[in-house]
Amino acid sequence: MFTTSEKPLPSPAVAPKGLEGIVATSSSICFIDGDAGVLSYRGIDIHELAQRSTFEETAYLLWNGKLPTTSELAGFAAQLTAGRQLNPRVLELLHSVPASATPMQVLRTAVSLLSIYDADEAENTHDANIRKSFRLTSQIAMIVAAFDRIRKGKPVIEPDHKLSHAANFLWMLNGEKPSETATRALDIALILHADHELNASTFAARVIAATLADIHSAITGALGALKGPLHGGANEATMRLLYAIDEAGVDPIEHVKQMFAEKKKISGFGHRVYHTEDPRATHLRRMSEELGRAAGNTKWFDMSRKIELFVKEQKKLNANVDFYSASTYTTLGIDIDLFTPIFAISRIAGWAAHVIEQHDDNRLIRPRADYIGPAYPSPYVPIAER
Amino acid sequence: MFTTSEKPLPSPAVAPKGLEGIVATSSSICFIDGDAGVLSYRGIDIHELAQRSTFEETAYLLWNGKLPTTSELAGFAAQLTAGRQLNPRVLELLHSVPASATPMQVLRTAVSLLSIYDADEAENTHDANIRKSFRLTSQIAMIVAAFDRIRKGKPVIEPDHKLSHAANFLWMLNGEKPSETATRALDIALILHADHELNASTFAARVIAATLADIHSAITGALGALKGPLHGGANEATMRLLYAIDEAGVDPIEHVKQMFAEKKKISGFGHRVYHTEDPRATHLRRMSEELGRAAGNTKWFDMSRKIELFVKEQKKLNANVDFYSASTYTTLGIDIDLFTPIFAISRIAGWAAHVIEQHDDNRLIRPRADYIGPAYPSPYVPIAER
Repeated sequence: MFTTSEKPLPSPAVAPKGLEGIVATSSSICFIDGDAGVLSYRGIDIHELAQRSTFEETAYLLWNGKLPTTSELAGFAAQLTAGRQLNPRVLELLHSVPASATPMQVLRTAVSLLSIYDADEAENTHDANIRKSFRLTSQIAMIVAAFDRIRKGKPVIEPDHKLSHAANFLWMLNGEKPSETATRALDIALILHADHELNASTFAARVIAATLADIHSAITGALGALKGPLHGGANEATMRLLYAIDEAGVDPIEHVKQMFAEKKKISGFGHRVYHTEDPRATHLRRMSEELGRAAGNTKWFDMSRKIELFVKEQKKLNANVDFYSASTYTTLGIDIDLFTPIFAISRIAGWAAHVIEQHDDNRLIRPRADYIGPAYPSPYVPIAER
Repeated sequence: MFTTSEKPLPSPAVAPKGLEGIVATSSSICFIDGDAGVLSYRGIDIHELAQRSTFEETAYLLWNGKLPTTSELAGFAAQLTAGRQLNPRVLELLHSVPASATPMQVLRTAVSLLSIYDADEAENTHDANIRKSFRLTSQIAMIVAAFDRIRKGKPVIEPDHKLSHAANFLWMLNGEKPSETATRALDIALILHADHELNASTFAARVIAATLADIHSAITGALGALKGPLHGGANEATMRLLYAIDEAGVDPIEHVKQMFAEKKKISGFGHRVYHTEDPRATHLRRMSEELGRAAGNTKWFDMSRKIELFVKEQKKLNANVDFYSASTYTTLGIDIDLFTPIFAISRIAGWAAHVIEQHDDNRLIRPRADYIGPAYPSPYVPIAER
């Protein structure tokens, strides 16, 4: 959608820092209009998908470019269910690491280990990538749930093949069949986070895949990127702020005012791409409120809403996807350090779509750097003379 | 060196495929002039370093921006030696995976696991990154050597703190003290491969680090990228070609002619950045020949040289760093599937320098995509109507 009005760049061309505004690839997966607040997968608006679709259907859409028929969807769900198996060595790994290991370290390591036991590892064809994507999608959710139980000294729960992806994750996490409300809330969160064009983790996955490395290598790298506080870690920071305010028993507005006075950043506001409301925030705000009401505790929602309105008024910054996912996940009873892993449980759908697209029409991604170091040639001064 | 003559790009600006010729960041680490065939680290020409430096000194240069004094170099080497420790869980991992696992899968997984046992994991300060870089540099070499022995049913060799980085690797790999010739050959190879500006694995590491993810996440991602056949895998492909020619007992020129007739690519020729001889190839060609003569077997060198001259004459393509590293490593007695791990043993020096530089002055790397998929908004058609 950019190329029509643009001329090819001269070479070498110096990009803005962080490649901001640089179109690094063409893609048919995700369309974002940051000015209009539009996010869509394969042309379908995220609001439609959040209201009417499921994670399984959304993943099908992302991988296949169209919505499935009833039988295609059933086949897709069956493939995901069939992927609910972990090599015993992966479970051993989860048992062997200390309980203090962060879930993202463990997930990144476990996904890398999975590749060793994946029969299709060496094959980058479209079909092999799809087969591996099913397994990775199922396995990532299982690893997150299993490690959380292991670190808490609880037994690992066997998957229930009758449950949807979202419901099975909650079942394996909590050992209780989840309510319809909780399942639907998580399912919507998974839809909302499933793809977001060339965000940093997806771009990392494509850079790795473009060497014709396998999808496990690409997803391992993406998990590393998602772990960063500027990416997947933002909603954790939001929740830590809400907890801090709650524990101190102070007024949220006064606390935020103080943070502004100390030039501190409030996590969960503003976005590189959106210049209006992040369309995902709309749904997460509503879910945060509804889940709070259903649980008879709107404390986190109320606090979030006050902060949102104040930051908007003071700084003209909009809440982004991370801001209300913090209170939503907390109201669902999910530990703070599982927020980023849950992001990964969803984003694997988009990462896989992007790796498949990259492998289907590949070119090595290899930019240049602007050298600003010591002049060339600098002499090699013998060590005795330094 | 590019910015002076260039205007800032408009936004959005569409980059050539693979970001070819796009300057993605400024950097003071590595200067390449692809037209003049120049490669330099911190301004010092690679020819000077290959002839007069060591891997330790080169890593110091890459991390600190200047050559060390005698005492600085001794301190640096002592830090590397102190890093020669592997958590027992990492050794357990190496024992637990099948011998058929590729060394790059195992190395990627082991480096990810290392982060769980690294006391500085959560800290991205310059000093913490340097501390972690020492450990990673030592540990990556140890992991490669230890896994190779384990998969061959041989005992793991304890490091020898009196040996240099290159010599200790050969010692831990072979269980024999290496000759001076072999040590110096590997040391030069490690110098030559230590950095190459924004190659795909380094760029992947910077994209990951730019989310403020930790250095282990970035290096794990870089290892995944290096694993790709278009990146670290190229010298393996060259060696497989040499083996195929040798086994068939055919004339190398005739074999290559036949490959050209079948439109097959010859690995180890041409480079995205160099339009003349890759300066690293100059040294590897010489080493391949010298090592062959020292071993009384110049078969691989002779075959390589014939192919090089023919491809140059027929296709105007120059041999790159990968072409002669194949025969060099084979003459050193190194298994073909260790070529890429040895690349990693060297490139960790550059990866670390780039991650440190990224964290020291960070901005999230987040480009855009040109959407070419189904028109927005496409309707969400209910499943019964599809």
